[in-house]
Amino acid sequence: MADSSADPAVRHSGPLPWPGDDDRLTPFLPLLYVAWSDGVLTTAEMKRVREELAATPELPEDARRVLESWLRPDRPPSPVELAQLRDRIRQLAGKVSEEELRSLRSLGVAMARARGPEAGGWASAEGMRVLEGVEEVLGVLGGEAARELVPAVDGGEPEPGPAEATERAEATERAEALGRALAGEREELRRRILELLGDPEVRVPDGLPSGEARDRVLRAVTRLAEEHLGGLAYPEEFDGKGDVASSLVAFETLAFGNLSVLIKYGVQFGLFGGSVLGLGTERHHRRYLSDVATMKLPGIYAMTERNHGSNVRAIETRARYLPDSGEFEIHTPHPGARKDWLGNAALHGRMATVFAQLEVGGEEHGVHALLVPVRDAEGNVLEGIEVEDCGEKVGLHGVDNGRLSFDRVRVPRVNLLDRFGTVDSGGEYRSEVASPGRRFFKMLKTLVAGRISIAAASVSTAKTGLIIAIRYSDRRRQFGPSGLPEVPVLDYLQQQRALLIPLSATYALHFSIQELVREYGSGEGHEGSARVDVLAAGLKAYASQHAQETLQHCREAMGGRGYLAENRLGYLREDTDIFTTFEGANVVLLQLVAKGLLSEYRDEMGDLRFWDMVRALGERAGDEVTRRNPIRSRRTAEEHLRDPEVHLDALRFRDKRLLQTVARRLKGRIDEGVDSFQAMNECQDHLVALARAHVELVVLETFQAAVTRAGEREGEEVARHLESLCALFALSRLERDRAWYQEAGYMEGAQAKAIRTLVNRMCRELRPSAVVLVDAFGIPDDVLAAPDGLSDQGADRPGV
Amino acid sequence: MADSSADPAVRHSGPLPWPGDDDRLTPFLPLLYVAWSDGVLTTAEMKRVREELAATPELPEDARRVLESWLRPDRPPSPVELAQLRDRIRQLAGKVSEEELRSLRSLGVAMARARGPEAGGWASAEGMRVLEGVEEVLGVLGGEAARELVPAVDGGEPEPGPAEATERAEATERAEALGRALAGEREELRRRILELLGDPEVRVPDGLPSGEARDRVLRAVTRLAEEHLGGLAYPEEFDGKGDVASSLVAFETLAFGNLSVLIKYGVQFGLFGGSVLGLGTERHHRRYLSDVATMKLPGIYAMTERNHGSNVRAIETRARYLPDSGEFEIHTPHPGARKDWLGNAALHGRMATVFAQLEVGGEEHGVHALLVPVRDAEGNVLEGIEVEDCGEKVGLHGVDNGRLSFDRVRVPRVNLLDRFGTVDSGGEYRSEVASPGRRFFKMLKTLVAGRISIAAASVSTAKTGLIIAIRYSDRRRQFGPSGLPEVPVLDYLQQQRALLIPLSATYALHFSIQELVREYGSGEGHEGSARVDVLAAGLKAYASQHAQETLQHCREAMGGRGYLAENRLGYLREDTDIFTTFEGANVVLLQLVAKGLLSEYRDEMGDLRFWDMVRALGERAGDEVTRRNPIRSRRTAEEHLRDPEVHLDALRFRDKRLLQTVARRLKGRIDEGVDSFQAMNECQDHLVALARAHVELVVLETFQAAVTRAGEREGEEVARHLESLCALFALSRLERDRAWYQEAGYMEGAQAKAIRTLVNRMCRELRPSAVVLVDAFGIPDDVLAAPDGLSDQGADRPGV
Repeated sequence: MADSSADPAVRHSGPLPWPGDDDRLTPFLPLLYVAWSDGVLTTAEMKRVREELAATPELPEDARRVLESWLRPDRPPSPVELAQLRDRIRQLAGKVSEEELRSLRSLGVAMARARGPEAGGWASAEGMRVLEGVEEVLGVLGGEAARELVPAVDGGEPEPGPAEATERAEATERAEALGRALAGEREELRRRILELLGDPEVRVPDGLPSGEARDRVLRAVTRLAEEHLGGLAYPEEFDGKGDVASSLVAFETLAFGNLSVLIKYGVQFGLFGGSVLGLGTERHHRRYLSDVATMKLPGIYAMTERNHGSNVRAIETRARYLPDSGEFEIHTPHPGARKDWLGNAALHGRMATVFAQLEVGGEEHGVHALLVPVRDAEGNVLEGIEVEDCGEKVGLHGVDNGRLSFDRVRVPRVNLLDRFGTVDSGGEYRSEVASPGRRFFKMLKTLVAGRISIAAASVSTAKTGLIIAIRYSDRRRQFGPSGLPEVPVLDYLQQQRALLIPLSATYALHFSIQELVREYGSGEGHEGSARVDVLAAGLKAYASQHAQETLQHCREAMGGRGYLAENRLGYLREDTDIFTTFEGANVVLLQLVAKGLLSEYRDEMGDLRFWDMVRALGERAGDEVTRRNPIRSRRTAEEHLRDPEVHLDALRFRDKRLLQTVARRLKGRIDEGVDSFQAMNECQDHLVALARAHVELVVLETFQAAVTRAGEREGEEVARHLESLCALFALSRLERDRAWYQEAGYMEGAQAKAIRTLVNRMCRELRPSAVVLVDAFGIPDDVLAAPDGLSDQGADRPGV
Repeated sequence: MADSSADPAVRHSGPLPWPGDDDRLTPFLPLLYVAWSDGVLTTAEMKRVREELAATPELPEDARRVLESWLRPDRPPSPVELAQLRDRIRQLAGKVSEEELRSLRSLGVAMARARGPEAGGWASAEGMRVLEGVEEVLGVLGGEAARELVPAVDGGEPEPGPAEATERAEATERAEALGRALAGEREELRRRILELLGDPEVRVPDGLPSGEARDRVLRAVTRLAEEHLGGLAYPEEFDGKGDVASSLVAFETLAFGNLSVLIKYGVQFGLFGGSVLGLGTERHHRRYLSDVATMKLPGIYAMTERNHGSNVRAIETRARYLPDSGEFEIHTPHPGARKDWLGNAALHGRMATVFAQLEVGGEEHGVHALLVPVRDAEGNVLEGIEVEDCGEKVGLHGVDNGRLSFDRVRVPRVNLLDRFGTVDSGGEYRSEVASPGRRFFKMLKTLVAGRISIAAASVSTAKTGLIIAIRYSDRRRQFGPSGLPEVPVLDYLQQQRALLIPLSATYALHFSIQELVREYGSGEGHEGSARVDVLAAGLKAYASQHAQETLQHCREAMGGRGYLAENRLGYLREDTDIFTTFEGANVVLLQLVAKGLLSEYRDEMGDLRFWDMVRALGERAGDEVTRRNPIRSRRTAEEHLRDPEVHLDALRFRDKRLLQTVARRLKGRIDEGVDSFQAMNECQDHLVALARAHVELVVLETFQAAVTRAGEREGEEVARHLESLCALFALSRLERDRAWYQEAGYMEGAQAKAIRTLVNRMCRELRPSAVVLVDAFGIPDDVLAAPDGLSDQGADRPGV
């Protein structure tokens, strides 16, 4: 034993008597060790333990004295003495059964039995009572303490064996069946693009310096054009397929690859080409669309201005018609009117669709779009045009965003994209739409496809993040029960909540996007449907926020590993971050949705009627929406809470009720003489809540319908998985909004609590299937990984 | 007029009769314009308008016919006709007063009056009734439509004048007074560091390539050492100030600069130097601390392993004592036991504090720390050591994170940092703490300063983000009431909620960090206080999440401008993102907090007692916590809801109640025989909620005390601002958790709704002071801006 007299804090007075070889003391050894192992007994507790021991006639005085010497607060054992005691216990314990590890006393007795009858005598009821008393004073969970002290024999991780191989094959099968349920139309195109994402020209690595990234991204987009993927939405005569749904599926699928490639692809073929197609007329199509589709004419969509991002109607760039020369003069009146954030502008764009206030013969006709050449074939910027690089951004480093300003640049009359308003050869402005407001509204319709695209891409990036983070969390182990191997972090409730709830919403959005693409593509919504416009705006806002939050959860769920660039979550988040802003800032879009919903009660959409509508809605007395079934609100049975009809009813109630109450609030303010702008602003949180609630209702309806279809097609097991996800999606929305439901009198506290509990339970239920559920997205490993491969993801375990 | 016969969609049959020069029609002109301007009247509505007109005897037949020709759905005016009508109205309106713009009819009458008696005759009651009828059918808010049609004369932005100069001076004064209220001790050090952050060597630009960034960051940290800012916490004899609070204030302030500099500074002086100081003994201090403080000895803190991030106790690196040579042998048994994520390891560190499982004479003694030389003076990696660069990360590109593995590397016996356990010259292990568990717990105490540091730095980065985003939002304008200038985006409710609620929490956290630094620094908590440990863990988790969320809000609040690298929000978010993970993953820390709270009921801290404690707590019958005043829960008066005592009561109730209910749940599971690990996991969300609730309670208590002090010192106006922020902080927490409060029966729906309303109102109230409130943080512009200057932030307005 060490001489510790040098250290006054350690008051050893010679070594403690060794209890490890006295058979009579064997049953006490585990208790002695635990008394010192993780804490320090108080004097009072030591006293109680000594009293317990004193009350034991079977224990001879000399043995009791040894025990007591180990129970003195003023004379703790030294670390070495304690370590020796532990090793002796392990030696004596030999191979103990799980049963014997259920408490410290049963461990002690088992050890004693192994030593012989004298020690084994302690298994008498009286002996056990003493030991139990001591164990109670120690206040530990004996079974766990015993297991920690003597690790279970086969505590290691199971070796992968034939059973595991079978399990894996079954998992693959289950994932494939689910994948079929997720598949929409145009699966072949989707598969072709996923394959193409492995192509070295398309597969641009993340994290390149901007200059190199921009070159590579340009090449990748050109390659996609060569594969005839640029003009999918254009008529067949212009290198197209005449199928707008295909172009949306292509965009959704490209979002599994480099996101700068995706955005540059969208700028070229969707925004620029889309403006030529949607705002131009026959002559523009003939002259330009093929060149756009084949990347012979890289283009720019110049709508946003420095001072006017969301409020496009207020842009200040001018396009004045000059009757003498038959030209338009494009002019930037001041630096705040510079066109800003334009993809393709800093380097590659040759021609721009420029939105400007049109002036003809002294009359203003509002916002119109004109084609303005920006660079010549050699890439030199044309006279009168100034180009500025936006510089480094948070993400999307491969997109050459720039600013354009125009110094009295002239373009021919025919460069006006004149589908909704034209200037004839006589210099006369003509339009079938008299009101500039309505014309503007029609022109903005060209943004709808862009919004659907961003919604779809958002869901794809959420999938990528979840595949990476869930696979990692299924393998990464940290902490665990005493004496047993560490558990995968996906076994933790908070990790399950952080990943599986977003997974359920990702599934939900998957089906909604699919349905919206179908509707828009089928022409039902393509041109006219206010319903599709509202959903496009709503789903864009909802899905982009979902992606942003999900990727953040994924990053944090992977801890440090998520902070490694090679695991892609950082790039994904940085690249998608702007999704919440561009193609309509989310808060603006959600208000658009709310206004759309308030207007839906009319046959016709139109701003003119808006306030009449609001007043009428606001005046309705408490109607069916406020009636509720008080029994329902008290029912907490799980069966009831899992019922899809209950979910639907709850989301429908919220949708209607929010609509009605916001109308009432707005009416109240208007009646008080508050300015409509101010009234809308004061209710902004309410309007946003209404918009989100409506999106969630539509998403749930679509998801539930998809579950039914999938059950019919892919069988019960697939249906069961989807049902669980659908229920988790719905219940997690109810959980999040349960304050509102209680305030609205739809739910009572007990039900709200039951929902919280059920969400946790459903997370646990889905956990074993988590990997199968992300495998079902069917994204090949080489597409998921950064070109250099994902990090080993925590598989550096001995023997693995 | 244009001949539109070429376009079948436009069915003009010659020009419409011009109403603009007929005095009798003057009052109708605004109504006619608005009828077409933003929507299309239905046939039924046109009919109703025509009926209204027909019922007007004053209007001669010919004039009526002109009006009716403008109200035919099958013959809309052309865009040019409509534009001409608008211009004519503006011409006739001349300078109309605000009063006359209150409706379309009053505008029309004002125009008519200006023309002469015949037109003016319409001001008769009958005439007004007709006009009113028409206006009603149009269903617009007449005042706004009129204002949009005829913009108010002085609709432009006010020019900055002498009044504004006075206002600015007053704002500066108010900001300075608030700044004094925020100031803590050691203000001089703070100011000195803020100044130093402008130093070209310290001011490392964001966004440099990693290689250059790492060089620059090393130089910056060296410069800080030269300024004697490295060893503030070390004894004076080792280039220190012997003041741990100063080192924390320094860290907090450096967080306004480049965050890679901050983290490298923290690794060198806090983690590496702190381990020498806190785990070593006199000889280590004498030998190393000066060199650490002056950066002569760049060091590494090698705790985390590839497979063991959070569960440090399970690390697998071995340190075996070799009695023959009197050395330790450090060894990495397999790749999963590599030391990982070590700052300073990839390039610059010469020596590492390596945590390893200590083995002496065949006995295991748990985790200990040893000093291991890693590189020689020339920077060559020493034999037996393998260094791997972690590679690109999401942020902190200037920190050279690396991995270390050891192949039987030997270090002398004295390299054991042996404050809590030593090996004497005889090769005997000695410690005053017998239990490896308790020793480990004591060693982890050295992490407490790091956690306080990260909490403080998180608050600083939130301040930076809010200063940038709030100043921008105060200037950036978008949309506005009809006919009036666009409004600053900070006038929008959602923008206020997104920025001002986090601002209130940032103020709240400011005072809590200040108090914690004081307590820790005063030695009260420095070594022993479990309370300070709990708060350090809790505030680290809470503040780092707050920073992450706030920076995301700021980015989105600035739209595209927030996505520009030059505006720093991207870098801030990327660099701070890992704050939620390192120095203890937040979810792990919050569970630590919860366990600490459950243990607080005992005199002594110690794992041994934990389950006893939980059982006892869980057994308590509904005690005072569940008693509540039912009247309170129904009170919605604003005065009541603004009362600080009410806020405190609510947060105290939540804290106690969550503690009690989680204890009950845990006890229930333990009694059912559930494993303690599993029981904790099943209640993980509850434990996390308890921890957060407790942090919020402490933060509120500290904030309220600070408000009182500030009122006494800085006067009523400062106190009023702080009171509002404090109330907003408290109410926004209650708003967020109002579901729970309703479930707990503490709040009823009406009160919950009243709180929501009040939060919105308080945001509006604070909005005019928003810029003053961020100016009060007192961060110089050159520190805030990236070295190239912040982007112009939306000031590109004509005339600005």
